[in-house]
This record gives sequence, C-alpha cells and structure tokens, in this order.
Amino acid sequence: MLNPFFKNYGPLKISQIIKHLKLNTNILNEDCEIQDIKDLLSSTQYDLTFFHSKKYKDIAKNTKASFCLTTQALKNELPLTCKAIVVDNVLVSISKITSIFYPDAVNDDFDDKAIYSDKTEFKDKVKFGTNILIGKNVSIGNNCKIGHNTIIEKNVIIGDDCSIGSNNIIRNAILKNNVKILDNCVIGKHGFGFFPSKEKNVRYPHIGIVLINENCEIGCGATIDRGSMSNTVIGRNTYLDNQIHIAHNVKIGENSIIAGQVGIAGSSIIGDNVKIGGQAGISGHLKIGNNVEIGGGSGVIRDVPDNTKVMGYPAKNIREFLRENK
Amino acid sequence: MLNPFFKNYGPLKISQIIKHLKLNTNILNEDCEIQDIKDLLSSTQYDLTFFHSKKYKDIAKNTKASFCLTTQALKNELPLTCKAIVVDNVLVSISKITSIFYPDAVNDDFDDKAIYSDKTEFKDKVKFGTNILIGKNVSIGNNCKIGHNTIIEKNVIIGDDCSIGSNNIIRNAILKNNVKILDNCVIGKHGFGFFPSKEKNVRYPHIGIVLINENCEIGCGATIDRGSMSNTVIGRNTYLDNQIHIAHNVKIGENSIIAGQVGIAGSSIIGDNVKIGGQAGISGHLKIGNNVEIGGGSGVIRDVPDNTKVMGYPAKNIREFLRENK
Amino acid sequence: MLNPFFKNYGPLKISQIIKHLKLNTNILNEDCEIQDIKDLLSSTQYDLTFFHSKKYKDIAKNTKASFCLTTQALKNELPLTCKAIVVDNVLVSISKITSIFYPDAVNDDFDDKAIYSDKTEFKDKVKFGTNILIGKNVSIGNNCKIGHNTIIEKNVIIGDDCSIGSNNIIRNAILKNNVKILDNCVIGKHGFGFFPSKEKNVRYPHIGIVLINENCEIGCGATIDRGSMSNTVIGRNTYLDNQIHIAHNVKIGENSIIAGQVGIAGSSIIGDNVKIGGQAGISGHLKIGNNVEIGGGSGVIRDVPDNTKVMGYPAKNIREFLRENK
Repeated sequence: MLNPFFKNYGPLKISQIIKHLKLNTNILNEDCEIQDIKDLLSSTQYDLTFFHSKKYKDIAKNTKASFCLTTQALKNELPLTCKAIVVDNVLVSISKITSIFYPDAVNDDFDDKAIYSDKTEFKDKVKFGTNILIGKNVSIGNNCKIGHNTIIEKNVIIGDDCSIGSNNIIRNAILKNNVKILDNCVIGKHGFGFFPSKEKNVRYPHIGIVLINENCEIGCGATIDRGSMSNTVIGRNTYLDNQIHIAHNVKIGENSIIAGQVGIAGSSIIGDNVKIGGQAGISGHLKIGNNVEIGGGSGVIRDVPDNTKVMGYPAKNIREFLRENK
Repeated sequence: MLNPFFKNYGPLKISQIIKHLKLNTNILNEDCEIQDIKDLLSSTQYDLTFFHSKKYKDIAKNTKASFCLTTQALKNELPLTCKAIVVDNVLVSISKITSIFYPDAVNDDFDDKAIYSDKTEFKDKVKFGTNILIGKNVSIGNNCKIGHNTIIEKNVIIGDDCSIGSNNIIRNAILKNNVKILDNCVIGKHGFGFFPSKEKNVRYPHIGIVLINENCEIGCGATIDRGSMSNTVIGRNTYLDNQIHIAHNVKIGENSIIAGQVGIAGSSIIGDNVKIGGQAGISGHLKIGNNVEIGGGSGVIRDVPDNTKVMGYPAKNIREFLRENK
Repeated sequence: MLNPFFKNYGPLKISQIIKHLKLNTNILNEDCEIQDIKDLLSSTQYDLTFFHSKKYKDIAKNTKASFCLTTQALKNELPLTCKAIVVDNVLVSISKITSIFYPDAVNDDFDDKAIYSDKTEFKDKVKFGTNILIGKNVSIGNNCKIGHNTIIEKNVIIGDDCSIGSNNIIRNAILKNNVKILDNCVIGKHGFGFFPSKEKNVRYPHIGIVLINENCEIGCGATIDRGSMSNTVIGRNTYLDNQIHIAHNVKIGENSIIAGQVGIAGSSIIGDNVKIGGQAGISGHLKIGNNVEIGGGSGVIRDVPDNTKVMGYPAKNIREFLRENK
C-alpha cells in the first residue's frame, strides 16, 4: 500500500481537476469521479495517472487509469481507455493535483497533537524514557524501548523488539520487528522536493512513507526522508552508520552495510548485499546492483551493475582507480 | 547593523587598548576614547579599525577611523587622520581588543536564563510544543509555530508566519517572515574561530549574527554559525536540504538551492540562483557568482564566475569534467 | 586502564571458553581460570589474548598471556608459556568470548536508570539547565555547566571547568578538565562494529571508552564512538568543528584542528599538530603523522608521514595535486 497514513480527500470530479489546472480542455465525461492519483502501473479505472517521459511508454500502453496527465507529444501512446489531459509540465501538474487529494502531506509543521507517553495506551507496555511524546495513529509492538526526549509523531507503526534511542523524531514510518534506531535521528520528514519559483518555492506533497524492515540498525544523526509518490525503503538486516542522509524515494536492499556520512540522493535504488564506504555519495535516480562495493569517499554518478567494485569521483572500477592512483 | 545583540562595553581609552596589547607605543592623544571596533569601511572617527593585508589598501586610504591596528609595512597607506598602532599580528590583536569591547561574544555556554515558553509573554500568541525554552531579548511575530524541545536562546528575532520544528537550538539570529526551520538544527552558535596556541587555543569573539531572510527553508540537522566580524546571511527564498554546515560569515544569495550534506567554509560568498549538489564543499573566502551550478560531490577551491556550471574536485567546468571522465 | 566502566563477568574456566566456541580441542589444564581478555601486549598470565595477523608476530613472541586464540598458521609464533586455541576466525571468536566477559558492552539501549539532575548529588555543584538526566557511575568536577536536555548516561567522568551544551548524549566517556562540548553531540556510543550475517548481523562488544583530554572543544552534531578493544582518544587542546564523525578506536593527538564534516574511520591514528580541512575523510587503520596538513575535501587512503601536506582523492602531496589541477 503506497500510503497507509495520509487521508485521501477524493473523490474529485474530473471537472474540478481541469479547473484547478486552469486548462481550456473539453473532456466529455467531466462529471466522472476520480478516486485517487497513482502511477501508470498501479492505477485502476477509478484513478488519474501521469506520463511524462518516453521511457515509460511500454507501461503507459497498458495503464488501466481512465485519465492521464501527459504532454502533446506523448498522448498518443496511451490506450483508448485512458483519456489524455494535456498539460505543459506534467510533474508540476501532478503535484498540484496531489496537493488537493492529500493536503496533509505538503507541510511538516511539528506535531501539536502529540501527548506524553504516560498518557497513552502504551504506558505499561513499552519501556519509555522521560519526556517522550506520542502522536496520533501510532502503534507499538511488544518488548520495545523508546529513549528520552524522543518524539514519535503521527502515523508510525513500530513492530516487536524495537529499540529506539534518545532525541529521535519519527513520523510517517513503519518499523518492522527488531529495528534499532540509535540517537538524534529524524525519520519520515518530507523530502527536499519543491518547484523553484522566484517569489516563493512551491512544495509538493510527500505521500510516501519510510519503511524500515526487520533487523535494521540506523546510526546516530541519520536523516531518512519519506517518499514523494513512492516509499523510502531500507531492506532487512541493513545497517547504517552515523550521520547518514537518505533522500526521498530511495530504496536500499537487504544485508547492506553503509558507513558513516554517506549520502544517497533521491529515488536511487540500491541492491542487496551492498557495501558503501564512509562519505560516499550516490546521485539521484541511479540503480546500484546487488553485491556492489563502493569505496569510501566515492561519488557515484552512473548506474553500477551487479557484483562490481567501484571507487573514485566519479566512481569507476576500483582496480582502474587504484592503478591510476598508485 | 552589524550586531544588534551583543553589548558594547566601550568606550575605551586608547591608553587602555595600548596597555592591553602590551605595546611600547607612544601615542600623543592616549586619553582619546574609542567607541567601537569596526572594519575600514564602516568606521567613524570614534572607532578603532584594523588593516592587515595589502589588498585592502584602497579602502584603507579613505578610512574615517581615528586609530588603526596595522603592521609596520602597511602603516603608511593610512590617511593622516588615522593614527597607526603597529602590532606584530593584526588579527590576533584585533581579536584581543574585540574581546574587551564584546566579552559576551567569546564563549557560548548554554543559556541559563532561558525559561519555559508558558512563562513568557508569547504563551498565547505562538503555537508552542512542549518543553520549549525562551531566552532573553527574544521577539516572535504573528502566526508562528515552535516545536517540542526547541530552545530559542537569547538574542533572537523571529518574523511572522515562521514554522520552527523540534529539537532546534537558535541564538543570536534574525529570522524574517515565513522562514521554516525543520528539526535538530543549531543556528547562531559561534563559528570555528580561534588562535591556535600549544597550551590552550584562544577563541576570538563572534559579534556577528545569523540572518535568514524571507521564505527560506532550513533542513534537518543544519549547523549555521554566526559571523565573527560580519553576519552570516541566507538570502530570500533559499532552501537548504538536510545535514548542511554553513560556517561563520558566509553569505548566500536569493533563490538558491543547496542539497544535502553540503558544507560551506568561512567567509565565502554565494550568489543568487545558485544550485549546489549534495555533499559538495566550498572552501573559505571564495566568491561564487550568480546562476552558478555546482555538481554533487564537488570540491570548490577557486572562485566561480556568474552563469557557470562546475563539477569535480577541484571543481572545473562541468563539460570538461564529464569529457575527462567518460 | 582499558575499560574502567564495563563489568568483567570473569573469571571463566578455559573449559567454558572452549565449549562456548564449540571447539573439539583438548587442552590439558582446562580448569584453569581466565580473568580477562586483553591484547598481546597488555596480557598477564591470567589473561586470554588473540593473535590474528602476521604483522603482530614480534609482539606475539613475547606475550605473557597463558592462552591465545589464533590460527593453525600462526600458532607456532607463540612462546611456550602461551597455549594456542586454534579457531577458524580469530576476530569472530574473540568477539564471542568478549561478549561473555563483558555482556553489558554489546548493546546500547537508552539508559533507563538515568534520573533528573535535581535528584542527584550534583544539584548544588553543577550549573544545570532544565530537563537533564544523569545515569549511574557518573562523576562531575568543579565549576561545570551542563545545558538543557542533555543526557549524561552511565559511566561518565567529567573533570573541572567543563562546559557541555544542550541536547547532548554522553556515555562511557572521560572528559578531562576544561573540555567544551557544544550542542547535539552523541559521545561514547558503541561503534559500527558487527559480523555480517545474512539472517541477522552479530554485534561485537565495545569495551573501550571515549577519552577527551584537557582543553578540547567538540563542535555541534559530533558523533564520537567508543572503542571496541581499545579507547577512542582525542588529545589535549584539539578542536573539532561541527558535524564531525570519529569512529571507534581512533586516536587523535594534541593541538590538532579538524574542520567541519570531517570523518575519520575506525582505528586510524592521527598525530599531534595536525590540521584537517573541511569534509576530508580518512580511511580506517591508517597512521597520519605529526604536523600533517590535509586539504579540505581530501580522501586519505594511505598512511601520511610526519610534516607532510596532502590533498586530493586519493590524497597525495599537495604541490603535486595543485600542479596537476591548475
């Protein structure tokens, strides 16, 4: 499920959507109701989707959505069952519409509904430190510990046997069993996503969550942003060292080991059994394969295939890097 | 105004200054009183200034200051109205004298005068979380939110419509309207400035502030140090991602976008509409022009002219970098 | 003293150790009791030691330990007074045994025994902020300040004239006189040390501490991990800027200056009078000599001899780096 947490304010009539985008478009069935906004693959006939790049052509051909925000150039790729709504900038338009469906996912002011842990149903079940706040829509499993000054803001599901340290802030996140969060982390905040505008940048909604799977450990001072249109995911038994930044929509596989001060930019996908050395950086929208090793300090700006060792800036085959730098 | 916050303990007699520097200098009018210590340009006849490098020669010629700490080699560049006080090390000397004028700006122990927000005049005006402390000499505008465990230490002016998250520490700072600070930031602490000494390093005062202009957003875990002799400034509508470090005296222009884990060393000046990729670092005392784009992971060690895209370590023209690293 | 803090659950009979490692080894004196587990050099006849690499051959020859975990290939290097216990993986085995001697040093859940500072013996002696927690086995010297929301967890010795800021978490650490810790630091947490295992990684104990010597200053947002089998040490009068990560077992000398966002990987040794520029990274297990200067952004992957200036990634002689990058 993409977003178990954010309230969907739909359905919206297609006429409302057209109006909100200030389009001069005639669409026959403008009373038709749209339930949700989804990607090309997961849309049903009740949904609006979006199609902004030729590389999604094959998926677009088979979308089940009834309506699709797209461009003049791409609209003919859609199936007959899907009506194109042509816009100038697909991503800006989808963001505007998502903000109507999910207005609660745009801004992340502090959670003013959070209450002290000893006022909650969890007070006898969880080993709490002092000065802990718990927001609405939170569940906590058995045998968990939550340290001093930590704030579990709204929309958090914590599994069994989790140990959460002190001074953390967590919202819009699912932590599976046996997850360990050390201290001073911020998990589930919206990502660094907005449309630049000279007067005042326009934030787009982040309706994804942070999903941290079983047996993971997250080091001190981590920032793990939730996804915009998909989730940010840390795979089973993956360990993160201190001061790591994981941007929105990143997916990291299982059994990976990520050393201190690493940064992974938005929407990159990291495989299983990956080792990343300290201070390495990975650009956005990349695919790093399984069993990859990335040397400390590397700057990865291109995809890395499975079973490869890379190092350098830009990162290249590690043997080549070491040979060139004897 | 350079420092609206730190108390000036002047005036000081010129004889006191001479004595404090342990100089054997004969100055005729040693009863003359000095009001303040300022740079060459902004000094008035009541001020002491300093001149330590030939590159400020043209400004020195026209200074209005009555006295100037300088070296034997530079003293003849000063106008007749300005008396030279010759010292071995101008910067160390100016630091010592600044410490007398502004003793409160040397050390940054925790603010023991801060009180709980519900004991302040702001309790009905601001939407406060829990466990919030407010120091002396603080003002907060309309429609502001301040999250849990945040400490607004002394000397802070917050405009209207600001949203400050949880676990932040802010002091000696001005936040204009509609500024958003996410979580876990430390803003306005003194910078990393001291004179090394084998026995015990000697900190110099930081009498500048942090000025964050309208519509800015500061990501989680930022550290933005206040200036030493000038201010640290973030321009209008500039957005900072998570885990960014901005050192003392840095000035960033308007509408700039700075990605995660970037570090900007002391006194560098960044233009308007600048984009800086994740983990990039900018050395101190550089000038980065308007409309510059700096690739992720870059290490910038030289000035960058307007309208330029750079990448690499050291950063060079991005086309050159990519051609050399195909 | 290696670990003044962690309780030693020994002595253990050598038969228990053999059994715990699931070895089929016949050792004559299996009722012999082992007091502690130590390195080759500091072991006495009552201790168990370990020997896993040929480079420690000369030390191994002279160890005073009565027993030694080692490999088939290395066992003949040991003196006759030291009985070899042959294992497949020395480091994994030593970790398992250390976990029996020091079970409290494996996991770092939040300190649930910490109490509010005004309930402690220190309430009239120390200048405390609000919401401060103090754990067991803590001592604090004269004339100290501890800021708001800071948690001094168990096993901390603080000297005289120390100034600790707000939102810090400190455990298993010794701070000598006149140490200054700014804000948001986590000091003394276990390091990033574990044995990878597909099902669930296995943490090894960290029985070292963090030792911060006289006159040091630690900037905002630092993470300084305690050592595993030795201590993490910051030398006298060394200053760290903001957002620095110091991994387990690192030793930094005196009078060194380390700029913002630097990361030093595990077990590296940094000399005296070393200057490290912003965002530089130092790989693990390296030796950086005295009076070394490392340029900002450098990635150091080899030892650096005394009195050398290096820069680049990988770091090389700074003149060479600048000549190649004019």
